[in-house]
Amino acid sequence: MDNCIFCKIRNGEIKSEIIYKDEDFMLIKDIEPQAKIHLLAIPTKHIGLIENMPEDYVTIIGKVMGKVSHMQKKLGLTNGYRLIINQGKDANQTVNHLHIHILGGEKLKDF
Amino acid sequence: MDNCIFCKIRNGEIKSEIIYKDEDFMLIKDIEPQAKIHLLAIPTKHIGLIENMPEDYVTIIGKVMGKVSHMQKKLGLTNGYRLIINQGKDANQTVNHLHIHILGGEKLKDF
Repeated sequence: MDNCIFCKIRNGEIKSEIIYKDEDFMLIKDIEPQAKIHLLAIPTKHIGLIENMPEDYVTIIGKVMGKVSHMQKKLGLTNGYRLIINQGKDANQTVNHLHIHILGGEKLKDF
Repeated sequence: MDNCIFCKIRNGEIKSEIIYKDEDFMLIKDIEPQAKIHLLAIPTKHIGLIENMPEDYVTIIGKVMGKVSHMQKKLGLTNGYRLIINQGKDANQTVNHLHIHILGGEKLKDF
C-alpha cells in the first residue's frame, strides 16, 4: 500500500535494517524496543486485520511463527520469547499492516 | 498428555466452561484474567513449543486466530484485541501446551 511504512521498508523505499527476508515475511527491529530484544515479523502482504485475511492466507501467521522459532537461537532468544499481535483500537495497533511482535533476550514481566 | 490441565479440560476430566470447541481448538476463560476479557485459545494437539510443531501443523496457529477473529463480536471484542503466545522460561510459559491468550473488552495498556 502507498502509505504503509512496512511496505516501504520491504520495497527499500525507507531504509531499515532488515534482519531476514523471504517470500513470506521480513524481520526488522522495533524502533521503540519494549524488551532487550524486540523484533517485528511482518508478513509480505499488506493486510491489517486477521479477519480480512483469506482462509488460505491466515495460516501464514503460524508459518512465520514456525520459521521464527527455528531462528530463535540465532536471534538471541535462547530462553524463550513472547509473540504479540495487536488488532484494532483497544490493542493500540499502530500500523495497519499485520505484524507480530517478538520479545525476549531477558526474563519478561507478566503482561 | 496425562498431566496436562488443558488436555484434561478438553477431555472433560476437569470441569471448565468451554466457550467454543471444534476439531482444531477450544476456547476457555483464563482463571486469572489480565483484562476485562481474557480468553485462551488452545489447539487440540498437545505440543508445547512452536519449534516442535511439524510444518504442516504450525499453520494451525493462524487458522485458530482466523476463527477467533470471525467470532470477535460474539466474544465481546468489539474494538479489537491482543493475541499473546508465551514460549519458554523468559516468557513465563506456565502450561506446556501451546495456547494463545486473547485480551480485550477494554482499552489495553501498551506492553
